[in-house]
Amino acid sequence: MRIYTRSGDKGKTSLIYGKRVPKNDVRVEAYGTCDETNSMVGMALSQLVNETWEGKQEVIDALHKVQTILFHVGAELATPSDKEVMWKLKQEHIDHLEETIDRWDQDLDELKNFILPSGHPAAASLHVARTIARRAERVTISMGDDLTNPLVQSYLNRLSDFLFVAARYVNYHLGGEELPLHTDI
Amino acid sequence: MRIYTRSGDKGKTSLIYGKRVPKNDVRVEAYGTCDETNSMVGMALSQLVNETWEGKQEVIDALHKVQTILFHVGAELATPSDKEVMWKLKQEHIDHLEETIDRWDQDLDELKNFILPSGHPAAASLHVARTIARRAERVTISMGDDLTNPLVQSYLNRLSDFLFVAARYVNYHLGGEELPLHTDI
Amino acid sequence: MRIYTRSGDKGKTSLIYGKRVPKNDVRVEAYGTCDETNSMVGMALSQLVNETWEGKQEVIDALHKVQTILFHVGAELATPSDKEVMWKLKQEHIDHLEETIDRWDQDLDELKNFILPSGHPAAASLHVARTIARRAERVTISMGDDLTNPLVQSYLNRLSDFLFVAARYVNYHLGGEELPLHTDI
Ligand code: B12
Ligand code: B12
Ligand code: B12
Ligand SMILES: C[C@H]1O[C@@H](n2cnc3c(N)ncnc32)[C@H](O)[C@@H]1O
Ligand SMILES: C[C@H]1O[C@@H](n2cnc3c(N)ncnc32)[C@H](O)[C@@H]1O
Ligand SMILES: C[C@H]1O[C@@H](n2cnc3c(N)ncnc32)[C@H](O)[C@@H]1O
Ligand SMILES: [Mg+2]
Ligand SMILES: [Mg+2]
Ligand SMILES: [Mg+2]
Repeated sequence: MRIYTRSGDKGKTSLIYGKRVPKNDVRVEAYGTCDETNSMVGMALSQLVNETWEGKQEVIDALHKVQTILFHVGAELATPSDKEVMWKLKQEHIDHLEETIDRWDQDLDELKNFILPSGHPAAASLHVARTIARRAERVTISMGDDLTNPLVQSYLNRLSDFLFVAARYVNYHLGGEELPLHTDI
Repeated sequence: MRIYTRSGDKGKTSLIYGKRVPKNDVRVEAYGTCDETNSMVGMALSQLVNETWEGKQEVIDALHKVQTILFHVGAELATPSDKEVMWKLKQEHIDHLEETIDRWDQDLDELKNFILPSGHPAAASLHVARTIARRAERVTISMGDDLTNPLVQSYLNRLSDFLFVAARYVNYHLGGEELPLHTDI
Repeated sequence: MRIYTRSGDKGKTSLIYGKRVPKNDVRVEAYGTCDETNSMVGMALSQLVNETWEGKQEVIDALHKVQTILFHVGAELATPSDKEVMWKLKQEHIDHLEETIDRWDQDLDELKNFILPSGHPAAASLHVARTIARRAERVTISMGDDLTNPLVQSYLNRLSDFLFVAARYVNYHLGGEELPLHTDI
């Protein structure tokens, strides 16, 4: 099958189960922004390929899991409210993020201030992914009653906190610089 | 001439031919998002500088062409409906994307599933560019009657498919990892 | 204190001084987009870590300063109109951008045309940051009367010009390719 069908050239597209909607439908905006978050997580992964440290595999596995669950979030968003979601988002997916945050955070200094995003390119990518996840969260708020599963917003909310901790954790292990904000300038 | 003029500090700016519009006009949003797509394609190019393989130049040329045509798309979007567009987008620009997709796709395994965006940093950047091109496409839908040339939406639609294939093609040549989605987790 | 509080899981959040607003409030969209710009500047910084040239520290300092001032911009956007802003944006922050643009621009060839964003990964990241800063600027236009300090729009307007010059300046010093647009294709 060809990747391009030309059937979306007039501005309409299909949800799961086939319902046609305009491409600027808020649902499409929402799962499109999850796709963008997913791709930026992929950028972080791509920046880790040539690095080695004990515990690297745990980070990679966690990021692959995030990518996978973002397809579950996407399925929730792309399925009309009256149809069954085939890849259901579950409470355990949020629990898993929280457990990982708690475990990684133990190694990190406690923060009393904002930090300037930077350090290793993988960490910097995770900061960018964090801000795109927050954009995705904002779009889901605009869905109103079209969003039936409240776990979607919880997951996206926790995801940006996970990505913040992941950025710091990568910098900690790879010697990436973490600068606190200084406002007295 | 100075790059900054301060004339846009009050929130208005100029289209081609000089008409003043607010910076949050849907036209400005549309060509601004093309500019963002263009810059992310530039990120992909920047990640290829130190790589070598037979056929690399063909990829670089295709990406430079995309950047050039995005300025044509931008010109279509920044020209008021009653004026002549000076850099016209043509059907042959879409045909060229399709031919390139078809040629590159021959080397790639057929997909039966979504893939997790990642691999080489250039490929990951192309995945991100793909999702920004789709955002640009969504904005053009919101332009309604302000968008007179239907080729703009066709081009942006095909562009995201091209960028998907380009990401896979770069990973194929540079040994970037391509993981299929597994939803049984 | 834990990074995640779960209190935003229902779609509301707090401004500075505590007022609750929906997460898709235009203020939140505005400072969220500044956070995204900030993170992409961090990506540029992360790509400079392994480079050396005389004058590198000046570029790093200027980018750290931009990140710091973006928190001031964020504070302006996150403070309700009837409350005092604690990290005030000042005219001197804009002056500083202009002075840096003027100084760096002297080393660069004058442009008679658009350029294709690319070159060194840090420069490419600065081009992307430039387009996100412009997106942030567009969101602030949508704030209407909620935006009381006119310096916010001036700063964001100048910031995208600064980031354009910074991208060119980094390419100039690191031998990154700068291609002019050719529309005769
Ligand atoms: C929603 C959706 C998306 C969402 C994903 C939603 C989510 N779950 O997160 C997003 C925006 C991410 C997306 C992206 C893309 N999509 Co899409 N998507 C769909 C849609 C509407 C539903 C898919 C879905 O989630 N199904 C839910 C599951 C439970 O049902 P399923 O039928 O078993 O799903 C299977 C297939 O749909 C998919 N699949 C099967 N063959 C292929 C082939 C390709 C190339 C791809 C990418 C997927 C794919 O794998 C799933 C099995 O695990 C389908 C069209 C449709 N109505 O089915 C298109 C569809 C699968 N997408 C398609 C395409 C081309 C893409 C993109 C390449 C577009 C682009 N240029 O960016 C990307 C690929 C992203 C990636 N990383 O691989 C095409 C695939 C055409 C083909 N067979 O070659 C389809 C069929 C639409 C079409 N043109 O008709 N998509
Ligand atoms: C639409 C537009 C854009 C769109 C592009 C639309 C598209 N086609 O895709 C986008 C959003 C991408 C854009 C970006 C920028 N733009 Co602009 N843009 C314009 C605008 C309104 C029309 C340009 C156009 O497409 N003309 C269509 C062609 C057919 O007409 P043309 O007159 O022959 O176009 C020539 C020049 O406009 C341009 N050019 C000539 N000198 C210079 C100098 C510079 C520095 C640049 C960037 C371009 C440029 O090259 C074209 C010849 O091929 C002009 C203002 C105006 N009303 O003309 C500003 C203008 C060209 N832009 C300007 C600037 C500063 C920029 C940015 C640097 C802003 C930023 N900080 O990001 C970037 C540069 C991006 C890049 N990669 O080079 C300035 C240039 C000032 C100067 N001479 O130094 C102008 C004149 C606006 C102004 N301030 O008055 N822009
Ligand atoms: C607005 C805001 C933002 C804006 C920034 C606005 C700006 N100025 O540019 C943005 C969107 C960037 C943001 C991002 C984040 N934020 Co915030 N933010 C706030 C908010 C509402 C106001 C902060 C502010 O600007 N205060 C203005 C100054 C003048 O007042 P201040 O009280 O002295 O500010 C101090 C602290 O707020 C902050 N601080 C103190 N302890 C900690 C701990 C952490 C982990 C962080 C990040 C900050 C922080 O440092 C300031 C001193 O310089 C507060 C909640 C609140 N109502 O106070 C949350 C808050 C500070 N943010 C929080 C979090 C978790 C984050 C993010 C990690 C979220 C994410 N996942 O992305 C990021 C971190 C970004 C970074 N680079 O460090 C938490 C911190 C919880 C904690 N103590 O562990 C808070 C308290 C909200 C909450 N959950 O209750 N945020
Ligand atoms: C840390 C601060 O970030 C803001 N906040 C909470 N959620 C989002 C989001 N999705 N996008 C942008 N900003 C957000 C709130 O003001 C919070 O207190
Ligand atoms: C692959 C799937 O992506 C969705 N789709 C089509 N066009 C866009 C776009 N511009 N942005 C986001 N999603 C889109 C449709 O649901 C399509 O079937
Ligand atoms: C260089 C050109 O970019 C456009 N322009 C000005 N400000 C913005 C912005 N925030 N976003 C997108 N485009 C903008 C105007 O058309 C200007 O002339
Ligand atoms: Mg949150
Ligand atoms: Mg499409
Ligand atoms: Mg401007």
